[in-house]
Amino acid sequence: MTRQLHLNAFLMTVGHHEAAWRLPESDPFAHLDLQHYVRLARIAERGRLDSLFLADTPALWNSIGRRPSGGLEPTVLLTALATATEHIGLIATASTSYNEPYNLARRFASLDHISGGRAGWNVVTTAGPDAARNFNLDDQPAHRDRYERAAEFIEVSRKLWDSWEDDAALGDKANGVWGDDSKIHPAGHEGRYFRVAGALNVPRPPQGHPLLVQAGSSADGRELAARYADAVFTAQQTLADAQAFYADLKRRALAEGRDPDTIKILPGIVPAIGSTEAEALALEEELDRLIRPEYALRQLATTLRVDPADLHLDRELPDDLPAEDEIEAAKSRYTLIVELARRERLTVRQLIGRLGGGRGHRTFAGTPEQVADAIQHWFDNGAADGFNIMAPVLPAGLELFVEHVVPLLQRRGLFRTEYTTGTLREHYGLPRPAAVLAGA
Amino acid sequence: MTRQLHLNAFLMTVGHHEAAWRLPESDPFAHLDLQHYVRLARIAERGRLDSLFLADTPALWNSIGRRPSGGLEPTVLLTALATATEHIGLIATASTSYNEPYNLARRFASLDHISGGRAGWNVVTTAGPDAARNFNLDDQPAHRDRYERAAEFIEVSRKLWDSWEDDAALGDKANGVWGDDSKIHPAGHEGRYFRVAGALNVPRPPQGHPLLVQAGSSADGRELAARYADAVFTAQQTLADAQAFYADLKRRALAEGRDPDTIKILPGIVPAIGSTEAEALALEEELDRLIRPEYALRQLATTLRVDPADLHLDRELPDDLPAEDEIEAAKSRYTLIVELARRERLTVRQLIGRLGGGRGHRTFAGTPEQVADAIQHWFDNGAADGFNIMAPVLPAGLELFVEHVVPLLQRRGLFRTEYTTGTLREHYGLPRPAAVLAGA
Ligand SMILES: Cc1cc2nc3c(=O)[nH]c(=O)nc-3n(C[C@H](O)[C@H](O)[C@H](O)COP(=O)(O)O)c2cc1C
Ligand SMILES: Cc1cc2nc3c(=O)[nH]c(=O)nc-3n(C[C@H](O)[C@H](O)[C@H](O)COP(=O)(O)O)c2cc1C
Repeated sequence: MTRQLHLNAFLMTVGHHEAAWRLPESDPFAHLDLQHYVRLARIAERGRLDSLFLADTPALWNSIGRRPSGGLEPTVLLTALATATEHIGLIATASTSYNEPYNLARRFASLDHISGGRAGWNVVTTAGPDAARNFNLDDQPAHRDRYERAAEFIEVSRKLWDSWEDDAALGDKANGVWGDDSKIHPAGHEGRYFRVAGALNVPRPPQGHPLLVQAGSSADGRELAARYADAVFTAQQTLADAQAFYADLKRRALAEGRDPDTIKILPGIVPAIGSTEAEALALEEELDRLIRPEYALRQLATTLRVDPADLHLDRELPDDLPAEDEIEAAKSRYTLIVELARRERLTVRQLIGRLGGGRGHRTFAGTPEQVADAIQHWFDNGAADGFNIMAPVLPAGLELFVEHVVPLLQRRGLFRTEYTTGTLREHYGLPRPAAVLAGA
Repeated sequence: MTRQLHLNAFLMTVGHHEAAWRLPESDPFAHLDLQHYVRLARIAERGRLDSLFLADTPALWNSIGRRPSGGLEPTVLLTALATATEHIGLIATASTSYNEPYNLARRFASLDHISGGRAGWNVVTTAGPDAARNFNLDDQPAHRDRYERAAEFIEVSRKLWDSWEDDAALGDKANGVWGDDSKIHPAGHEGRYFRVAGALNVPRPPQGHPLLVQAGSSADGRELAARYADAVFTAQQTLADAQAFYADLKRRALAEGRDPDTIKILPGIVPAIGSTEAEALALEEELDRLIRPEYALRQLATTLRVDPADLHLDRELPDDLPAEDEIEAAKSRYTLIVELARRERLTVRQLIGRLGGGRGHRTFAGTPEQVADAIQHWFDNGAADGFNIMAPVLPAGLELFVEHVVPLLQRRGLFRTEYTTGTLREHYGLPRPAAVLAGA
């Protein structure tokens, strides 16, 4: 069989374009309505997508004037979606900086049991001071410390998921012995960030471990991914950058002693789909026209660590920006934005337009055929194992993708026509991990 | 209208009796199967019950040999049940000692949005060292400290739920203004246990605040309930004890400046229902015969802080037990157990039987008529505003209750025959709380 493409539907309010909510067809409160997400999940499942995904930050940052704000917490929302779907994988973002491993490992294990092995965790370290200030801190911990804590958090979580052997539960009614205590292995973890003594209070998840996704692209982020991730989300603007990222990450995985095929790399793409290229471009322009740049300008200034007064809508970025190693928040996103602006000599207004469409992810306007070609081109040229599909408008953009792009990819033999696998790991062609027993 | 009774279905694996899983009809793995809970929720909703409830402790304690162990995390499980039901309230236990307010307030707000105003939180402080050791501690914090933290946790949660005014979201497409920033009120909380600066990242829940339940009966627990709780779960063995508890709590609520009617008191009852009293007693005996006392003996020794070797199955409890004020775990449950054993002069084996049936809650075997009378007797005599129904065997015991006891209570005019209210607060006859704005 030809190498198979993996597709993940990244769901976000009524679309990834920041002005999507202003379109006549959009319900500006849809992101608080379970039925909206049920509809999206079913569209994605009709398209036989591997998974759907929800982002998250434990803070309300930015003005709520700008776009639909506040959202349902991903682990609970995905649990509701588990009951409305049968096959599709369910990936929730959760922060290692602002959670406790025992609680989070438990929730993901529970979601995995409830969904029959369809749970995934997008492990993030959460950039920015706003979240930190909701958790007893004055500012975010240093980038390096956040990633060190993330690695230990994953280690503890794996010990907890493995703390029940797969056959620890017996259900032996005759002898009155429900489970075999000798098959329980307390985590016994004593580390720099966490001390967790006990076993998890839920049996080993159907997948062994939920699928682990990593989404930070800095050097620290890549190293974390190389050690632990089953899949990687990334924002890449050009084929060359995406190829370099792909090669680097596969190399790092190999250096960690892993088979590079077991780490799947999914760049994002924001596809504006039209029945002609002109129609697709017109949709993009209509959306860009609806952006109110004053909101975005303030966020851009924060990201770039400059005074908003130093950014002028019709000029390029100032010359004297900080270097990536001075950035303690999201390093790789910072560099991507600066390089994009410099490479294409964008004015602040144009940059805001590009970021408004995909927050740094690749935007692409075209016909279904052109979108399928764009996807296949990166897939065939060492830049991607699949894509994170970020429809600019939801549900319309996901529906167009599923109805017009997916069939093309299926006809080319690149994508499944039916679900033939059961768990999320299986959809991504990954094995069920063996238990690593504490103390063994 | 006559004063109305409130009924809550306390769900627990395949029943509250610790040996229920050994009955021929029980599936010993049902507690990991969403469909089991969906079935229970629908039975409870058919009975027009106010709510259903899940207990929780973030630790695996005790032998897994004894009974079905490990469980699905309550906030995610109840979210799944929200999608399978329309009316019934959904109450999840969560610990204030081992969570962060920002995360927990967010999840309960999300559950409230997803369920259309049916979320409730059983606020517990979590007794025992096992949980503490899963959260970076060597032992549980002192009882007093746990309750102080619980009070501050609730204060922060209320600030977070109230951080969005009810009409902060505008959805003004024409002007491109999604929400009104002047209606966002960051928590700005700086306390002994928590510093939480920001606003919640989800709009105010449909109920304003989820229903707050409190379940600790020590003096500290009662004080917390008097200040904050909408409902109180309690274990009471005798009418006189229940009356004293009821009067005390209503008095404390009054002293806190509250209308005592706005705090609903629900003792637990474990009803073994038979078509004759003999049949009910036979069910109870069959279940007690299936208990393996060696497991329970070890737990009893831990609770009483004695050496297991000092407990003899066929003798009464030793004389020299600690006083309640030396107990740092669950104070009121300790006292209840000791008093029950002394009052009825129970041997350890008999005590284990009584606790195996309801862990200290009142057990009652009888016909539907007798169960309805037992409920009404306490309800009419200043001991209860309703009951926590703890079926010894599930689903059978809940089904019997709904089909045979509920109709009697309805015929007596004590219980609703249809849902006429929408939210969980409304089911309990409680108003939607006004927002207390931070800094106001
Ligand atoms: C598709 C995608 C989704 C992401 N979702 C989140 C998210 O939900 N929450 C979050 O804190 N970071 C998320 N990130 C990661 C941040 O964008 C940022 O890269 C990260 O916080 C730190 O990255 P760094 O390693 O480059 O510093 C996501 C990244 C990608 C590519
Ligand atoms: C019906 C009921 C349910 C309870 N559920 C829990 C629970 O799920 N988790 C928990 O830690 N405590 C729970 N408790 C409280 C404990 O039993 C115990 O009373 C509490 O931890 C401390 O109580 P104290 O105030 O008496 O020390 C529950 C109590 C009752 C009456």
